Amino acid sequence: MSESDSQEQLVVVLPDGSELEVDPGSTVEDCAYEIGPGLGRDTVAGKLDGELVAKEAPVYDGVELEIVTDQSDEYLRVMRHSASHCLAQAVERHYDDVDLAIGPPTDDGFYYDFDNLDIDEEDLAVLEDEIEDIIAEDYEIEREDVSIEEAEDRLADEPYKLELLEEFADENDHVSFYKQGEWEDLCAGPHVDSTGEIGAVELLEIAGAYWRGDEENTMQTRIYGTAFEDESDLEDFLERKQEAEKRDHRRIGNEMNLFSIQDVTGPGLPLYHPPGKTVLKELEDFVEDLNKDAGYDYVETPHVFKTDLWHRSGHYENYADDMFIFDVGDDEFGLKPMNCPGHAAIFQDQSWSYRDLPIRYAENGKVYRKEQRGELSGLSRVWAFTIDDGHLFIRPDQIEREVEEIMDMITEVLETFDLEYEMALATRPEKSVGSDEIWEHAEEQLENVLEKRNLEYEIEEGDGAFYGPKIDFAFEDAIGRSWDGPTVQLDFNMPDRFDLSYVGEDNEEHEPVMIHRALYGSYERFFMMLIEHYEGRFPLWLAPEQVRVLPISDNNLGYAHRVANDFDDFRVEVDDRDSTLERKIRAAHDDRVPYQIIVGDNEEEAGNISVRDRFEDQEYDVEIDAFKAHLEAERDEQRTEPDFLQD
Amino acid sequence: MSESDSQEQLVVVLPDGSELEVDPGSTVEDCAYEIGPGLGRDTVAGKLDGELVAKEAPVYDGVELEIVTDQSDEYLRVMRHSASHCLAQAVERHYDDVDLAIGPPTDDGFYYDFDNLDIDEEDLAVLEDEIEDIIAEDYEIEREDVSIEEAEDRLADEPYKLELLEEFADENDHVSFYKQGEWEDLCAGPHVDSTGEIGAVELLEIAGAYWRGDEENTMQTRIYGTAFEDESDLEDFLERKQEAEKRDHRRIGNEMNLFSIQDVTGPGLPLYHPPGKTVLKELEDFVEDLNKDAGYDYVETPHVFKTDLWHRSGHYENYADDMFIFDVGDDEFGLKPMNCPGHAAIFQDQSWSYRDLPIRYAENGKVYRKEQRGELSGLSRVWAFTIDDGHLFIRPDQIEREVEEIMDMITEVLETFDLEYEMALATRPEKSVGSDEIWEHAEEQLENVLEKRNLEYEIEEGDGAFYGPKIDFAFEDAIGRSWDGPTVQLDFNMPDRFDLSYVGEDNEEHEPVMIHRALYGSYERFFMMLIEHYEGRFPLWLAPEQVRVLPISDNNLGYAHRVANDFDDFRVEVDDRDSTLERKIRAAHDDRVPYQIIVGDNEEEAGNISVRDRFEDQEYDVEIDAFKAHLEAERDEQRTEPDFLQD
Repeated sequence: MSESDSQEQLVVVLPDGSELEVDPGSTVEDCAYEIGPGLGRDTVAGKLDGELVAKEAPVYDGVELEIVTDQSDEYLRVMRHSASHCLAQAVERHYDDVDLAIGPPTDDGFYYDFDNLDIDEEDLAVLEDEIEDIIAEDYEIEREDVSIEEAEDRLADEPYKLELLEEFADENDHVSFYKQGEWEDLCAGPHVDSTGEIGAVELLEIAGAYWRGDEENTMQTRIYGTAFEDESDLEDFLERKQEAEKRDHRRIGNEMNLFSIQDVTGPGLPLYHPPGKTVLKELEDFVEDLNKDAGYDYVETPHVFKTDLWHRSGHYENYADDMFIFDVGDDEFGLKPMNCPGHAAIFQDQSWSYRDLPIRYAENGKVYRKEQRGELSGLSRVWAFTIDDGHLFIRPDQIEREVEEIMDMITEVLETFDLEYEMALATRPEKSVGSDEIWEHAEEQLENVLEKRNLEYEIEEGDGAFYGPKIDFAFEDAIGRSWDGPTVQLDFNMPDRFDLSYVGEDNEEHEPVMIHRALYGSYERFFMMLIEHYEGRFPLWLAPEQVRVLPISDNNLGYAHRVANDFDDFRVEVDDRDSTLERKIRAAHDDRVPYQIIVGDNEEEAGNISVRDRFEDQEYDVEIDAFKAHLEAERDEQRTEPDFLQD
Repeated sequence: MSESDSQEQLVVVLPDGSELEVDPGSTVEDCAYEIGPGLGRDTVAGKLDGELVAKEAPVYDGVELEIVTDQSDEYLRVMRHSASHCLAQAVERHYDDVDLAIGPPTDDGFYYDFDNLDIDEEDLAVLEDEIEDIIAEDYEIEREDVSIEEAEDRLADEPYKLELLEEFADENDHVSFYKQGEWEDLCAGPHVDSTGEIGAVELLEIAGAYWRGDEENTMQTRIYGTAFEDESDLEDFLERKQEAEKRDHRRIGNEMNLFSIQDVTGPGLPLYHPPGKTVLKELEDFVEDLNKDAGYDYVETPHVFKTDLWHRSGHYENYADDMFIFDVGDDEFGLKPMNCPGHAAIFQDQSWSYRDLPIRYAENGKVYRKEQRGELSGLSRVWAFTIDDGHLFIRPDQIEREVEEIMDMITEVLETFDLEYEMALATRPEKSVGSDEIWEHAEEQLENVLEKRNLEYEIEEGDGAFYGPKIDFAFEDAIGRSWDGPTVQLDFNMPDRFDLSYVGEDNEEHEPVMIHRALYGSYERFFMMLIEHYEGRFPLWLAPEQVRVLPISDNNLGYAHRVANDFDDFRVEVDDRDSTLERKIRAAHDDRVPYQIIVGDNEEEAGNISVRDRFEDQEYDVEIDAFKAHLEAERDEQRTEPDFLQD
């Protein structure tokens, strides 16, 4: 008995739910061979409880195991990791005394960080050639487990690697190296079997990056690259990348004077210039109309709170590190990382009857989250962003109706911007608060809402938050990129933490259910997405400048201004610069103005206008009133009035 | 020669500008006798360069001297200071072991702070009687200069006085005491000659106050009182005070659910509940309409900036102590105490031609100022408040036109709220930046604007800011209280600090003039003022709930809702509670709803309504459409559309 105990088999769970018994000490590769010798031979790496590991990694009892072969989604990631090694090898072949930092794969490719590397974009071609040579030389990529002492010897000249090693050494007595040809690297893997397996590689750009992402550390040189299985996949990627760069919201934001982020004002803290604020204001007004129609009341809460509030809400425990916190006298204050506790505090300040519910609070609430400064980028990663936040306090019997209304609002928003979307229902996780009854009741009502829409949706079992189930949206932009979209999140926890209650028909105190919802989510991120989605060519209702009047000569300046006055219900400008018509047309096109009105002697005499649109179609002899009606119709059609709730 | 040098006369400047030569060592009283023996005898105190001092204070060369007699505005202040001494004397007659802190006069009366005093509001009557006795006993109030050592002996049992003495001792070798009867106090004065000169005294309330206003210190007992020359003035004051208390925005704010300030969310940080946010939103929209009509563009700037910005603007030097500042990594960040540097940063981010100017930025910008926590009160003293801020960047030749437009906007706002106002022009002070030319040009243009309006205005010579002249408004509310109003402030300094420029017609770089302006100033303070001005009975356009429909019985509930639907262009509610009509009418009145629509069987049958207004006038058989038209007309009349710029 004691012998069999000590030799007890491990059980690993395979993706289809079946179980595999293996000997203690078995690796991922061993398990693959256990399943079948073909799979064993094809194994490149594994996933243990979702984490990508080398095929040499030992499995443990109860782990969920997935085998990664060159047919797996993760294969590209493994290959890119190997490509990053080739990059470092190439660098060390061409540059002396370079210090290696780290070189991981990313979602789009890979990078490697170097210190003491003096390099320009022009030098990348040489490195690319060298990488191609390394691939052609088809070195076997060998893994070797070595002791910490041995590793220290090998890395004596690599200060950054030694720093990493020191941390590993706290918990391990061995580390792994990966060797290819004359070159090796401290690395956990996984990698492909030989450099010859790496397909098409392209180096993309050079950037500065702080060691470990911390601005207090040395600025290193980061070389970005990508790798694909073949040239054609690489070409497709480069084309998509070029398209995305053409649409880069930072460049367009600058060209259109939408916003700026300045050294003197601080990182991750955008300033909205008039054209940018105009677009934001339209977005705010659109959601305000939806909210008002759906019975939301606007509130306004401070950006600064005593941290007592987050001790109460429970956010302090998990969020304090990401918050901007400071002392005033003996008390601690912070910038809010979310709006919900403030709304709960307003609800709590009054007493409520069951007849008052649902209570729906809305706020364009700015929140603050302390991202690493190296991670900040344009409007996509900022320190301060505004959420079109909404919080509902409802009775359990109101869940279905309220969620349905929110779903209507969300789809209205996504459709207004021509965004294709998908939905998923995330259900109760193992660790959760709230009774079985409320969870079952809530999940059933959410499913009812989804079923009614006759649209496909996923069920993500156990993926809900510990405090309630939720419906997530994901959408696709004009160039096929996928974005996390709005969320409808039920919450059985915060009402408890804030002691929220209402008096029921039975005259007893009851706890309301809270719903968190946002239609855009972060204005900053949504605005950024819209800029790239439309390439700055906003639909009429959103365009900062909607119409520009171009007088053919100075003689027509007076008429141009009179015509502009006729369009004062739109954002209209007159190009009164001393310039040729061709230049004015080009400028309006470059400035992404949806419509140009051209007025010369002919138009002035006839009292009409010529109209040119974005697609450079020009129409002559247009009646002013007719064009105004056309513009109004276009604007109204694009920016639907919220009447959906009245059906 | 040497003798006459050492005996050189001092020159003091009198209010009429004439000069008086007096001997070195002369006091205020000596100067008064020099002017005339009658004035000498009547002298109670003096003002030296605007600061109230005892008649015993020595004058110095070049000082501006004003003699204070019982005919002066300041006399009341002197008398109230003496009344505060009587209060302390009365307290020490009735309570043992009390420690004295400070007892200054205030704008409305006086207070005295005590430690180790256990007292209730009921005990105030006894103290009032004692004060009356002290006044009747008519003690001479004698000033005595004593050495620091002597003062230490006299104050051996007064720890707070000793603390104050220690500070005086740093710069003085003598201090003054004021003695009346058996009682004396360390005090700089001034005081009236005897307690019999004090008129009618009333003690008002007891409050807690931190020693020196610092929440880290002991909480002491503060007794507030006031004093007037006679009973009738005192009665008038108490009546006005009662009226102000009836209108107290904190009480009304709570009753109407406008806002809350909660312990858990923090001091000086109001949360606006739906009804409060509704009023704020109307105020925002009103100013937005004015701004748009006047060609302002909205921008949005962060609440948090790197402090580099304020080093650049110069605010850091003067404002840092009042700012909320915190470190992130190696950099210092802060919450903005004003919006102008952010707007200057936006202007600076672009290049401008003379044809682009004026540029007018508007923002409802939240600012943060770290007031002492003991000073915070409702919406009148807060840590975070929003300014309806506007900053203009203009050419010098545009000053007059732009200031005129701003004046139109300000008067439009003040008249909309029925506020009587006064104006004053504050001109160049001795220390200032900017050329003579720009100051003269600017002051002349401001005077032109004021002259054109045919309204009285004061000129406050030398009272402008160091960076430019300004026009100040002051207004009066419904109960005659005076408030500092909007300001139009020219600024020749910030454009220089931010290197702002535009290219002129001459193709050279020029520096624009900046104008700071706000129409309300702080939304919080203006809102607070409006609540008290209207006693919460807001005009129709501002009322959070504009119309309430009261069904006479449950039979009329359906009709009530149909009627409410007809008024969906207004903020309308149906009182569907199970209650009597009388109670519903009272509730609507208490809730300060401008109009009640009453519907019973008669109305339902006739398809019309009964209408009751705030003044409890009721009209029967009113056509729904007619009342709607009436409401619309009333709203439009109250909330004028901004067409003033088109004349």
